[in-house]
Amino acid sequence: MTKLAPIDLRSDTVTRPDAQMSAAMAAAEVGDDVLDHDPTMRALEERVAQLLGTAAALWVPSGSMGNLISLMLHLQRGDRFLSPRGAHVLAYEFGSAAWLAGGMPQPLEWNAGPGRPTPETVRAHGESSYDTLRTTLLCLENTHNSAGGAVTPPHEHAQLAAAARERGLRIHLDGARIWNAAVALGLPPAALTVGADSVQACLSKGLGAPVGSVIAGGADFIGEARRVRRMLGGGVRQGGVLAAAGLVALDRIDALATDHDNARLLAEGLAEHGWSVTTPQTNIVLAAVPDVGLALERLTAIGVRAVSMSGQIRFVTHRDVTKADIGEALRRIKEAGL
Amino acid sequence: MTKLAPIDLRSDTVTRPDAQMSAAMAAAEVGDDVLDHDPTMRALEERVAQLLGTAAALWVPSGSMGNLISLMLHLQRGDRFLSPRGAHVLAYEFGSAAWLAGGMPQPLEWNAGPGRPTPETVRAHGESSYDTLRTTLLCLENTHNSAGGAVTPPHEHAQLAAAARERGLRIHLDGARIWNAAVALGLPPAALTVGADSVQACLSKGLGAPVGSVIAGGADFIGEARRVRRMLGGGVRQGGVLAAAGLVALDRIDALATDHDNARLLAEGLAEHGWSVTTPQTNIVLAAVPDVGLALERLTAIGVRAVSMSGQIRFVTHRDVTKADIGEALRRIKEAGL
Amino acid sequence: MTKLAPIDLRSDTVTRPDAQMSAAMAAAEVGDDVLDHDPTMRALEERVAQLLGTAAALWVPSGSMGNLISLMLHLQRGDRFLSPRGAHVLAYEFGSAAWLAGGMPQPLEWNAGPGRPTPETVRAHGESSYDTLRTTLLCLENTHNSAGGAVTPPHEHAQLAAAARERGLRIHLDGARIWNAAVALGLPPAALTVGADSVQACLSKGLGAPVGSVIAGGADFIGEARRVRRMLGGGVRQGGVLAAAGLVALDRIDALATDHDNARLLAEGLAEHGWSVTTPQTNIVLAAVPDVGLALERLTAIGVRAVSMSGQIRFVTHRDVTKADIGEALRRIKEAGL
Amino acid sequence: MTKLAPIDLRSDTVTRPDAQMSAAMAAAEVGDDVLDHDPTMRALEERVAQLLGTAAALWVPSGSMGNLISLMLHLQRGDRFLSPRGAHVLAYEFGSAAWLAGGMPQPLEWNAGPGRPTPETVRAHGESSYDTLRTTLLCLENTHNSAGGAVTPPHEHAQLAAAARERGLRIHLDGARIWNAAVALGLPPAALTVGADSVQACLSKGLGAPVGSVIAGGADFIGEARRVRRMLGGGVRQGGVLAAAGLVALDRIDALATDHDNARLLAEGLAEHGWSVTTPQTNIVLAAVPDVGLALERLTAIGVRAVSMSGQIRFVTHRDVTKADIGEALRRIKEAGL
Repeated sequence: MTKLAPIDLRSDTVTRPDAQMSAAMAAAEVGDDVLDHDPTMRALEERVAQLLGTAAALWVPSGSMGNLISLMLHLQRGDRFLSPRGAHVLAYEFGSAAWLAGGMPQPLEWNAGPGRPTPETVRAHGESSYDTLRTTLLCLENTHNSAGGAVTPPHEHAQLAAAARERGLRIHLDGARIWNAAVALGLPPAALTVGADSVQACLSKGLGAPVGSVIAGGADFIGEARRVRRMLGGGVRQGGVLAAAGLVALDRIDALATDHDNARLLAEGLAEHGWSVTTPQTNIVLAAVPDVGLALERLTAIGVRAVSMSGQIRFVTHRDVTKADIGEALRRIKEAGL
Repeated sequence: MTKLAPIDLRSDTVTRPDAQMSAAMAAAEVGDDVLDHDPTMRALEERVAQLLGTAAALWVPSGSMGNLISLMLHLQRGDRFLSPRGAHVLAYEFGSAAWLAGGMPQPLEWNAGPGRPTPETVRAHGESSYDTLRTTLLCLENTHNSAGGAVTPPHEHAQLAAAARERGLRIHLDGARIWNAAVALGLPPAALTVGADSVQACLSKGLGAPVGSVIAGGADFIGEARRVRRMLGGGVRQGGVLAAAGLVALDRIDALATDHDNARLLAEGLAEHGWSVTTPQTNIVLAAVPDVGLALERLTAIGVRAVSMSGQIRFVTHRDVTKADIGEALRRIKEAGL
Repeated sequence: MTKLAPIDLRSDTVTRPDAQMSAAMAAAEVGDDVLDHDPTMRALEERVAQLLGTAAALWVPSGSMGNLISLMLHLQRGDRFLSPRGAHVLAYEFGSAAWLAGGMPQPLEWNAGPGRPTPETVRAHGESSYDTLRTTLLCLENTHNSAGGAVTPPHEHAQLAAAARERGLRIHLDGARIWNAAVALGLPPAALTVGADSVQACLSKGLGAPVGSVIAGGADFIGEARRVRRMLGGGVRQGGVLAAAGLVALDRIDALATDHDNARLLAEGLAEHGWSVTTPQTNIVLAAVPDVGLALERLTAIGVRAVSMSGQIRFVTHRDVTKADIGEALRRIKEAGL
Repeated sequence: MTKLAPIDLRSDTVTRPDAQMSAAMAAAEVGDDVLDHDPTMRALEERVAQLLGTAAALWVPSGSMGNLISLMLHLQRGDRFLSPRGAHVLAYEFGSAAWLAGGMPQPLEWNAGPGRPTPETVRAHGESSYDTLRTTLLCLENTHNSAGGAVTPPHEHAQLAAAARERGLRIHLDGARIWNAAVALGLPPAALTVGADSVQACLSKGLGAPVGSVIAGGADFIGEARRVRRMLGGGVRQGGVLAAAGLVALDRIDALATDHDNARLLAEGLAEHGWSVTTPQTNIVLAAVPDVGLALERLTAIGVRAVSMSGQIRFVTHRDVTKADIGEALRRIKEAGL
């Protein structure tokens, strides 16, 4: 039996740097970013700040660190923070929001759509009391990963932000895949960050950089974030080699539309074949199956790789997967009678 | 206008020590409980351990500290713990479960009854993963305060404990009002602690001691708890003066039945008068009103004191409130047209 | 062999409440101090604030909790704090300053006298840097326990406070035995708190209350401290029973002079007998012996109880030990040839 | 006036990747190191484990993170750890040892030589007590940065490790510059890690990789460290691009001898010129000057860059500074009359 070439739909984090990116990394002008700020890092950070509409930005090794630094800076002694249930900060960051940032999470229902609470829900849970909990932060996620890459449109984001402000809450936006949201909406990313005190955005997911994310916010916030980054051990030396890859990645935002097309293609093919799937808004397809473990095993056997998420199967399209690959994946699934 | 004598139904924590209790405190044999264990403290701890069916017990200044010490000992770096939504450890302890114990809470729905999840829910959320969160603790509350003093019956408790064990979870029981549950069920308290690794029980609520709670558990657990108690500053010197009050309080468990009767009386009277109230199982009555703030103001004006909880009004009966007081409270409420 | 009645010189924490104190406890007017502030607690807190020269004060179950709350409020994310080496917060509070308050301690040498650094030392270690550590707090201890109850005189305290201010540091004074310092100096306690942002003082040591300490400071600080006290589980219900004992205790400050006399008597007797002892300034005598463990064993055998501290033997005089007891202790020691 | 080309002796972290390293990075085979372990990462980790004599190893973005993860895994609730005063974990990691790992540090005197305590000192401070502090870790640093790159010879290391074992302590070795120690001693690095439970070693200092350090230890320890790395946000995706640089760097250990020669040359030149300098054992020269701030300013004016450390001036030699550069730096210093 011939082993089938694997089609890797586990995550958009599996993309590999291409020749252009490698060349940029090799050619990068670098400095010691801990001592005196690497020039390519600086260029990257300025570009991201401009894209996200903030005064400043800071490179971090991962989206998890970007979220953690933000929560550490926004939260004090036991503060409650609100976040849609299933959010990355709640479910996929090893409890760092509690352990390291000291926050008491209040998960919010998705009563406005996949991954999104209503402004009323934010208001209802956003109260603070001297006698119980202080609520100080709303942490949103756009696109929302465990809701299948669902997009929060700008008017809903603005209403959520307004409700948070009404309650005196700060706002952190986990925008690991904010580029996907912007492309899906046909808007500049800055249109999706209105009212946020901090934004985290990944360079290493759909955009294809090998390593790195960015947090964006006000100048004082970023100044403190740079200090907390070193405390966590996220300050790096000649980071320009990675920032150079990040700059190339940022030129590729528009190309995410292809991933979105491929996700739709996959979802339609699976639906035609009788699967129960979400209609993807971006590059993530969730499929409900009776036995996730078994389904993943059988998919692996035919060289189609996916992961389990929220009790479903998650497929993610990305720049290392072509339209032809999607066709081939569907063909194998049908052929195997999955 | 004559000021009406207030009838204080805010909490069973408002009870004052009576003459018998004061005499016991004055007569208590004491030692330095931090240095070599106060003898009256020891007597109290042994009695509680016996009542709750554990090997050992430890006095603490409050139920909040009892819960906090237990969570600090059960949880490690970011561990997830499960608890019914609205639990005291989630909503009324200032976020200490996250900030000081480092736990990432997962609130559970009340799908088995007021304040109680089903065993299936415990199993579903009790999974651990090297790649995301480790879940290590189930924290139950019996009676459940914000569910209106609802009782978890022993067979349900046992099933929840079994589900937790299946998932390798430890079990902490917040039994601040476990005495009320035992009296309501006509069972010894130890019948309600089966499978628990630690139990917290209050002496200062319905039982009427001025200060103090107890944690009960295995000998090693209590040995470590004694150390953490000192770290938190909960070790006291001649604590015997308080333990003596606790010993008197423990003689009064059966008298809680009167509080339960009074709560039923209050609930029935309010219902007759057209209020929307829960049917109390123990000593707590929750009433749904259109405007909680306004209702509390108007109750205060007629000398009936209550608090807001979970968006409702909470009345608590206790040993310093008589059947006649309940009658008088109902009379005033009707007269004022509330 | 007749067992000798033990003379307990382990600590001034072993004192038992006398009849006057017990009567005050029994007669105390109480309320629910967590809900609406117990009146006797309030009276105690006001009296302590006045004695220590601050705007407000808060009862806490122990000196350790008083120090912990203060450090939690003064320190942020990894801040360095300065404290004389051997200070209680460094050596006897189970690492809570690091674990729970997150502070990085910098022990200071005793280069100005027992238990006291010079102002130059405070200045030298008080620098802050964006690139390494922020130093934000000086934590003093007066009298200094492990320095044998040594007193910091007011002019030295003032110079240390001035040096701290120069570096922008806040000042916490661990005044567990500040009453002893005041009596030894013949000054009001408030003369020793100049410049401090917070002061912790114990009611349960030489003053003889069974349980309790107080933190004193500004109104905002105490407001936040009340909240953190509940987070730690140090809020108690009818605390007035303990506050009443505290009020009696505060009437007994002057009587500490007797303990100081007794300590001098003990030190002189031991010195005459050939022991190498400190000259006590207050109620603590440290004795250097070749083998601390062996010496303690032999002392215990003759009914003289002490503890080891800083590699020496510590004797503490207190209100439950008379001049005659000291004479008897010296007699036994000489007779036993120790 | 011609601006002089700067000679950068601030740190060995300022080295830039050369063409060979860039080529290796571009050619690296990569995977998603968070999902399924990047193959080049794996090769690097295996090579480091072998060099340091441990079962396993893990790449981390920085030495600070390597130390932090190790302390987080070794320390529990308020544990005391011992470390030579001035150690990197105490002075240059933003208090993370206290804030994030919860450890209470006990700085040790350098009574065995620069940066090194005696085994007796370790024994004296290594005691644990149920009633005060538990001491659980000895954290050594070789070479010791703030002691001027001082080397701990293997027999001293072994004695310190033995003393720690006697007290039941674990041992973490901050070997950020362990390669320099090994080269200075003419020994394999593994000869310097005997008895250590964990070792941190940097690829981004003298060895010249742009980003990255490694922690080495037992398989279980490294398994948990991988998890904590993700919690901190140090897990990266196609980390192979950095690991490839690390592999090249590890081929350059022997070349550190040149840096050591250059450091000696610099120290001798400065001493001849009347400076008070340490005799360097590795690549660090400390110079005592009356006014560090002024001296750094004047050095900067002549294009010789250094930093302040421990109240002295620190010069560090590295692969981007040649023997000729050292000569030129000395010439400028003499000419400027510094």
